[in-house]
Amino acid sequence: MTLKHIILDTDPGVDDALAFLLAFGSPELTVEAVTTVAGNVSQEKGHRNAKQLLEFLERTDVPVCKGAVRPLMRELRHAEGVHGETGLGGAILPEPEMKSDDRSAVQMIHQKADELGKELILVAVGPLTNVAAAVVGDPELPSKLNGLVIMGGAYNLTPYGHGNVSAVAEFNVWHDPDAAKIVFNSGIPMVCAGLDTTTHPDYRMGVEMFKEIEALDTRRSRLVVDLCRSIVERLKGFNLHDPMAVAYLVDPTMFKTQRCRVDVETRGELTRGMTVVERRHHRVVEEEVNAEVIVEVDAERFHRLIMDRVARG
Amino acid sequence: MTLKHIILDTDPGVDDALAFLLAFGSPELTVEAVTTVAGNVSQEKGHRNAKQLLEFLERTDVPVCKGAVRPLMRELRHAEGVHGETGLGGAILPEPEMKSDDRSAVQMIHQKADELGKELILVAVGPLTNVAAAVVGDPELPSKLNGLVIMGGAYNLTPYGHGNVSAVAEFNVWHDPDAAKIVFNSGIPMVCAGLDTTTHPDYRMGVEMFKEIEALDTRRSRLVVDLCRSIVERLKGFNLHDPMAVAYLVDPTMFKTQRCRVDVETRGELTRGMTVVERRHHRVVEEEVNAEVIVEVDAERFHRLIMDRVARG
Amino acid sequence: MTLKHIILDTDPGVDDALAFLLAFGSPELTVEAVTTVAGNVSQEKGHRNAKQLLEFLERTDVPVCKGAVRPLMRELRHAEGVHGETGLGGAILPEPEMKSDDRSAVQMIHQKADELGKELILVAVGPLTNVAAAVVGDPELPSKLNGLVIMGGAYNLTPYGHGNVSAVAEFNVWHDPDAAKIVFNSGIPMVCAGLDTTTHPDYRMGVEMFKEIEALDTRRSRLVVDLCRSIVERLKGFNLHDPMAVAYLVDPTMFKTQRCRVDVETRGELTRGMTVVERRHHRVVEEEVNAEVIVEVDAERFHRLIMDRVARG
Amino acid sequence: MTLKHIILDTDPGVDDALAFLLAFGSPELTVEAVTTVAGNVSQEKGHRNAKQLLEFLERTDVPVCKGAVRPLMRELRHAEGVHGETGLGGAILPEPEMKSDDRSAVQMIHQKADELGKELILVAVGPLTNVAAAVVGDPELPSKLNGLVIMGGAYNLTPYGHGNVSAVAEFNVWHDPDAAKIVFNSGIPMVCAGLDTTTHPDYRMGVEMFKEIEALDTRRSRLVVDLCRSIVERLKGFNLHDPMAVAYLVDPTMFKTQRCRVDVETRGELTRGMTVVERRHHRVVEEEVNAEVIVEVDAERFHRLIMDRVARG
Repeated sequence: MTLKHIILDTDPGVDDALAFLLAFGSPELTVEAVTTVAGNVSQEKGHRNAKQLLEFLERTDVPVCKGAVRPLMRELRHAEGVHGETGLGGAILPEPEMKSDDRSAVQMIHQKADELGKELILVAVGPLTNVAAAVVGDPELPSKLNGLVIMGGAYNLTPYGHGNVSAVAEFNVWHDPDAAKIVFNSGIPMVCAGLDTTTHPDYRMGVEMFKEIEALDTRRSRLVVDLCRSIVERLKGFNLHDPMAVAYLVDPTMFKTQRCRVDVETRGELTRGMTVVERRHHRVVEEEVNAEVIVEVDAERFHRLIMDRVARG
Repeated sequence: MTLKHIILDTDPGVDDALAFLLAFGSPELTVEAVTTVAGNVSQEKGHRNAKQLLEFLERTDVPVCKGAVRPLMRELRHAEGVHGETGLGGAILPEPEMKSDDRSAVQMIHQKADELGKELILVAVGPLTNVAAAVVGDPELPSKLNGLVIMGGAYNLTPYGHGNVSAVAEFNVWHDPDAAKIVFNSGIPMVCAGLDTTTHPDYRMGVEMFKEIEALDTRRSRLVVDLCRSIVERLKGFNLHDPMAVAYLVDPTMFKTQRCRVDVETRGELTRGMTVVERRHHRVVEEEVNAEVIVEVDAERFHRLIMDRVARG
Repeated sequence: MTLKHIILDTDPGVDDALAFLLAFGSPELTVEAVTTVAGNVSQEKGHRNAKQLLEFLERTDVPVCKGAVRPLMRELRHAEGVHGETGLGGAILPEPEMKSDDRSAVQMIHQKADELGKELILVAVGPLTNVAAAVVGDPELPSKLNGLVIMGGAYNLTPYGHGNVSAVAEFNVWHDPDAAKIVFNSGIPMVCAGLDTTTHPDYRMGVEMFKEIEALDTRRSRLVVDLCRSIVERLKGFNLHDPMAVAYLVDPTMFKTQRCRVDVETRGELTRGMTVVERRHHRVVEEEVNAEVIVEVDAERFHRLIMDRVARG
Repeated sequence: MTLKHIILDTDPGVDDALAFLLAFGSPELTVEAVTTVAGNVSQEKGHRNAKQLLEFLERTDVPVCKGAVRPLMRELRHAEGVHGETGLGGAILPEPEMKSDDRSAVQMIHQKADELGKELILVAVGPLTNVAAAVVGDPELPSKLNGLVIMGGAYNLTPYGHGNVSAVAEFNVWHDPDAAKIVFNSGIPMVCAGLDTTTHPDYRMGVEMFKEIEALDTRRSRLVVDLCRSIVERLKGFNLHDPMAVAYLVDPTMFKTQRCRVDVETRGELTRGMTVVERRHHRVVEEEVNAEVIVEVDAERFHRLIMDRVARG
């Protein structure tokens, strides 16, 4: 098995927190750095949450870098209505003591790409502002990387592939559509976990699974419960958005993907941030494919991974 | 059975021609007027085709009116690549002799709405330029009409509900998205036959059905064959776009519709002319529903109607 | 002298009221009809104001027709902050008794164009919604008319040619930019009174002139004073927007115009409704000229006309 | 006199070459690095030209870094029609031998900003892609810098302040409007040399001045003549676009500026890349001012500087 070196770019965020637990609980992955981006919550809050999670995981050896404080071109908007005032739902963690790395998110990405080259995979589970900034700051970055796995987009490839923040757009892409457009057109090989599968009722954490986690009553499971409880209660379950992106790296054999041509609408009045997929069969040209989108999940194995690595840890 | 009074607004067009055959072959409908609009072909060609079809049907008593020569705000583009140089595929009909009505399409719509009021249904199987112009010319028109049935849009409500002219847009709406936006937001009760069903393999005219029509070898069937042959050969079948809109009026019990909130994207770079449907269940508010979209067809009865009324006549 | 037949399309509005006084006080003009459009105030209020003004002028013989209740594509917004709650500033006129004509604004324009043809000039001093609707409802209208004089636009042809409702847009064009784009590209010969001259300090009604009008103390002058007083006090004068368009028809020799290529921005984020003028000398092609924009006014004669025809009457 | 430390960000380009001559010929300035950006010509050609110019100037000690190969979001377009096939008009310089610095333009800007801090001034005379990329890569950059002087924009502040590449847009801003919007809204203190003055007939290099330069017949003057001749002949003079930005740094007392609120239109159909200035006096709020725009030049002193530093050197 090859060890995968990743940078986790994140806007924590309740489901981001679960992605931390999974990433740091998976021996298949080495997290080289954590970089934070404004999205679910502000840069400031998200960065603090990242530190708290690293301290909870006793991984303060991992550098954590500040990134974008707002989208490339748009006003900042957050999703605290979903993620709670701190961004970590009902979880209360001690004020963090670890220091931020001096390097900005972009500088860290550039440096690790230069050091690790084809070994490095970016995992971006928030808006793509930092990744886009890294691309425009180093036009050769795409060819240096091994790839990019994102949580983001709604691809109309399953009946659940419509939008969440609007009729057709998913939050992360909608939040910084300009960044997403830059990234999707950058040439970096991408795999996308989008709403098509993350909101699919078969792949969510259902109420049953939540209760099972609750029953474990370990340090980790209690954190998961505190993070997720209010959402589980409100929405009768929890969408495993960000953990699905990390899970793909841990074990891609659990997932079926579709090779697509994806572009991002940045200017529409109703369609801002829509990930537009070419679904006309006669128009899909192999050379134009720029993303693999997850369209099916082995629910049993995926849920077992979450139980083992996130909840039990 | 109530007789339905319709104005047929059309850009003939091969499948428009089939809609003529169906509309004038259906005793349930009285066609009060035919109005032409630039779309599949230019206003000039389409208007000529409309006259030829009325002469073929020996219905020169029906007034035929000229409408828009181009979209409200956009450049004119046509689809002669699909419909052939004249717009009627391989069909050759005599140079028409009938005269156009003096009234413009909009004037005819206004006048019939004033005369017939709640008896009048508009059937628009081309771009919605004339209908939009009628709406903006008489703000009270929407409340005067019984309703509007269109062929147009791609609603993502079946796996075939993606675009044809672009990844997400259907030709008629894409051709004049501004007109479509005006019409969808006008308050006229609308039923929409879109690509979700018109391109569905179960509802198309397949090669078998085409051969069956050919075998009839009547005056009408020969016209249908001349109209459709080249498309049938190229695409292994023929999408019954415009006839489906007319068929809905003839017998709505053959169709299952879904009540939707639909709006039209006019400004997107990739999404011009997309019919955006709210598919988030918690967001569909009954008062905001503005269209019924056909999502299922009783294929057997639909195909029988086409055979009986279009091909046999 | 040729008598000029006009339809006055208006959204009254304080300065529209002055345009009424000028138009009906000028023997050079015959007002064939008044048509109302949503703009400064709602259709309902503006239509009522139009009737009140016709009754004040004892010209209830002139048909008054309802037009658009909102812009073609955009949300309705008004300017009651400027024009007062009724739209007629501090003027209080009796509840009108005259009846509206049965025809819509568009129907009236179409009918008069057919009757009067090259004798007819449209004078549009509100948003261009009705004129655009008339154009799209009868594609041959542009060639039937003698021309169109508008109040609208900001053309960057004098230092005062910047916007009022935004940095670069004038209210009437901004209010319905889609309509304006249709009209400017329709081929109707146009003359435009825009902010370049209507807000020019030399051409405004200054405080002195207002006092002179006040001193007349006639029935008409009292109306003018009630209409304008609050604006004069707030802005140290009154911009003679709409009267300037009418004055051009009364006596074009008072005005210097520049022949321009003008188009309208409908999609900009900062530039919605900007009238974009080609000012690069090498790019101005005579065949592309579509408007004459007023760039200079003989202030003395213009002000005398306002005194004689509007205030004294 | 304080020595000013600058990074020259450039897309050479004929007038960029003159800016090199001025910058390196001015003892008031220390050029810390040259960074290249796609614009007038491709990154590849422009980078080569930058090296040729540094070798001509015998300043191969100055690091030269590659930057953006295309705009942030748009297709690449160049202006070789103006600048000639190589980008340096008729000038022929030896194939360069110096090496590019390993750092990207953005990395160089970040590093110099960290080293020099408030001593560093960016001078950007091409599209603002590199500057925008530096801003998004280090959100704290704006507060680290002393300022930014650009050649770019058309501000409607003089009768020459209309567009060149379109009716309202100047080439550099139009080429990458998204980058320009990021930069204008970044908080970096900016001074702008735009078309308002660079195309003003009084401030251009006229035919007389060109002949004077020709008559010098020195190594430098011959380069200038080769660079400019074909433009001088075609346009009866030469607009000193980029040198004006550098001249402002050399001696700001030659220039009169106006403090403005400037934003950039990125979405207009006709107004892409327009620098929109708030010219409504009552709306200009001191706290919102984000740029000083040059509105007047002491032509005599400016031309003398060009003669002394660019042509004589």
